[in-house]
Amino acid sequence: MPEFLTLLPPDEARTLLLSHLSQPIPDSEFIDVPSSLGRILAEDIIAPHPLPDFQRSTVDGYAVHAGDTHGASDSLPAYLNLIGEVPMGNAPAFEISSGQCALIHTGGMLPDGADAVVMLEYTQSVQQKEIEIFRAAADGENVIRVGEDVALGQTIQARGSLLRPAEIGGLMALGIVKVKVVRKVRVGLISTGDEVIDPSQSPRPGQVRDVNSFTLGTLVEKSGGIARLYGIIPDEFDALKKAAAKALSECGVVIITAGSSASTRDMTADVIRSLGAPGVLVHGINTRPGKPTILGACDGKAVIGLPGNPVSALVNGYLFVVPVIEKLLGAHPRPKPTILARLTVNLPSQAGREDWWPVKLRESPFPSKRGGGDEVDANPIFGKSNLIFTLASADGLLRIPPDATGLSAGDVVEVLLI
Amino acid sequence: MPEFLTLLPPDEARTLLLSHLSQPIPDSEFIDVPSSLGRILAEDIIAPHPLPDFQRSTVDGYAVHAGDTHGASDSLPAYLNLIGEVPMGNAPAFEISSGQCALIHTGGMLPDGADAVVMLEYTQSVQQKEIEIFRAAADGENVIRVGEDVALGQTIQARGSLLRPAEIGGLMALGIVKVKVVRKVRVGLISTGDEVIDPSQSPRPGQVRDVNSFTLGTLVEKSGGIARLYGIIPDEFDALKKAAAKALSECGVVIITAGSSASTRDMTADVIRSLGAPGVLVHGINTRPGKPTILGACDGKAVIGLPGNPVSALVNGYLFVVPVIEKLLGAHPRPKPTILARLTVNLPSQAGREDWWPVKLRESPFPSKRGGGDEVDANPIFGKSNLIFTLASADGLLRIPPDATGLSAGDVVEVLLI
Repeated sequence: MPEFLTLLPPDEARTLLLSHLSQPIPDSEFIDVPSSLGRILAEDIIAPHPLPDFQRSTVDGYAVHAGDTHGASDSLPAYLNLIGEVPMGNAPAFEISSGQCALIHTGGMLPDGADAVVMLEYTQSVQQKEIEIFRAAADGENVIRVGEDVALGQTIQARGSLLRPAEIGGLMALGIVKVKVVRKVRVGLISTGDEVIDPSQSPRPGQVRDVNSFTLGTLVEKSGGIARLYGIIPDEFDALKKAAAKALSECGVVIITAGSSASTRDMTADVIRSLGAPGVLVHGINTRPGKPTILGACDGKAVIGLPGNPVSALVNGYLFVVPVIEKLLGAHPRPKPTILARLTVNLPSQAGREDWWPVKLRESPFPSKRGGGDEVDANPIFGKSNLIFTLASADGLLRIPPDATGLSAGDVVEVLLI
Repeated sequence: MPEFLTLLPPDEARTLLLSHLSQPIPDSEFIDVPSSLGRILAEDIIAPHPLPDFQRSTVDGYAVHAGDTHGASDSLPAYLNLIGEVPMGNAPAFEISSGQCALIHTGGMLPDGADAVVMLEYTQSVQQKEIEIFRAAADGENVIRVGEDVALGQTIQARGSLLRPAEIGGLMALGIVKVKVVRKVRVGLISTGDEVIDPSQSPRPGQVRDVNSFTLGTLVEKSGGIARLYGIIPDEFDALKKAAAKALSECGVVIITAGSSASTRDMTADVIRSLGAPGVLVHGINTRPGKPTILGACDGKAVIGLPGNPVSALVNGYLFVVPVIEKLLGAHPRPKPTILARLTVNLPSQAGREDWWPVKLRESPFPSKRGGGDEVDANPIFGKSNLIFTLASADGLLRIPPDATGLSAGDVVEVLLI
């Protein structure tokens, strides 16, 4: 198998692939902010006004001129004249002069002349219009200043930000109800193999149903892409080339899951070479599963050949397809969801090779200390990479780095949640 | 503020709330498996046939009767007669007798009589119909047995399973193209406050735009629910009761974000008491932010009053609303996405209180060892809980447990990714 003579480390292979892609796709669309969950901003958002745009109280109490309370204590209260109550949702119709105060509720607007709020529990109403103040207030105490959340003209969200509930709330707070987001990346998926049939059909002996179009299709969807299925193509160069060329013309990324044998993998590589320059970048990666993965770039677009085995295809989808989608969306890098866990068995590994094991996580019966990673047990699921149910029962993927020659039972390991 | 006399720890408060809810909602719907990403199974799935349902080769090589290769080595090869090639996608039309072999590709169906495959690299073709075998094969070597992935009748996915790419692939592999999933939980959202206006409007002095309907609405969506917005209700008991009763009749959960002052919070509690039994379960939780959170159950449905401050509302949405949705969906518990990071500053905390700090994560300039949690720095974002942009810039929430009296710079802490 000459194609495996030079196996690249996965990190190096990924970097090489990403370096050949065009910059983030410029396509964007305007959508309603409440429907923008999970999308990537296509523009910088500038605050059109400060937030809040009036001074607000953070407590229930009395709006005062702080200087009037200096020195006030339980034994020596200050006495202030109550001149009114701040209505919620309106500017007060009065201002505070020295010696005066006004009842104010949390979120209410400070009257002119007031610069602090004394909490209700440090006050007492002595007569109808006189309030005893038992504690001094500093200038600005219990007050949110104008622009304390966001200043006028501040860039509040940069292009490439992921829109989560908090970002969506921030935009709505500023009255930004529509927003420009990056269009979803279209990813074309081709399954190959004379033995592969559509899942709605009944297999004859020797046939298997297509799995990879659907595992990879939903992975694409989850990662901010739109999957387009180009069907199941027989192991013929011309048929595969035609389908791949069509997919490449309609999509930003093309994934071919190769038939399983060496000859069909070679055919995938030949097709990628025929589609555009530079063609095949990497043929063979030092990882398990996924050694036969082919990474290609054709005129700025990624064309990836994944092994036909369902576990290899999906694991390598996480390793190579997701980063391509993130790069095309222009998404800012974000921490990956991981969990620390304690390995329950020894796991052998070959030095120089990066291994990814499906693991099941279980609460440990013997945790020792908080946050130390041994509150959770990681049980590797053993199975050949043809067995999709080894992944369907896994909570995550455990990485054995290339410089390790295996891991020992009891080691605390990092697990990528899938 | 008498309602805060007994503050419950958040874990205890959550358990109490969940114990008052009806069992998982029985509503389900049939949907196409390729469109089922993120949904929860409403039925156990039983394998309708074994997978694979024929013996398959895992390599390119020669299908043999293992016994014929015993003792074979480089110096003493076994010689076998080549009788054909296994076609991909079809049952071979021949069977292997003693002394015979057949060319087979990865994924091909083993002919009758063969029980192992010798990899191509341990063989040599000497004449047109004679193959030299240099290595002995054990019975079953390089073969996937019938049912090795899944046995006939095995429960492959239990009710409550989350459908991820791997589960979806597993179902398709078995020809299960439609599946019964739990209907999304409807969550009614009510914002209250005389000062609150719709985000599409321009605020007058003293008014603020509604944020909580949208932060909580998208959180609900992300967690497997459907958000229904019941608008912004003024601070009047009858109006709030009417809106809440309507929401409760149409939804499985109702969330009221209270006005910010003590009096409006009390009104929320009174409304919850009026809606059904037992009414308010918890009024005041020993957590920051979120002390004024109200947890209620009305005739088996959760009614939750969250503080009006956007940060408090969203953080407590993660703590209380998400677990309610998960319980109603009947979703199996899953590990939460977390990351270990090194705290960059001291954080004070009050013993007995659980604190949640928004933090920004950054790659550490001084990592010491792999996976030890100090490859990432956690920088707390300081800001009042009225400031939504403290959360919009956060990668996660850092928990200070109730039994701690603060954390120190350099401590390795667990951060919940949001």
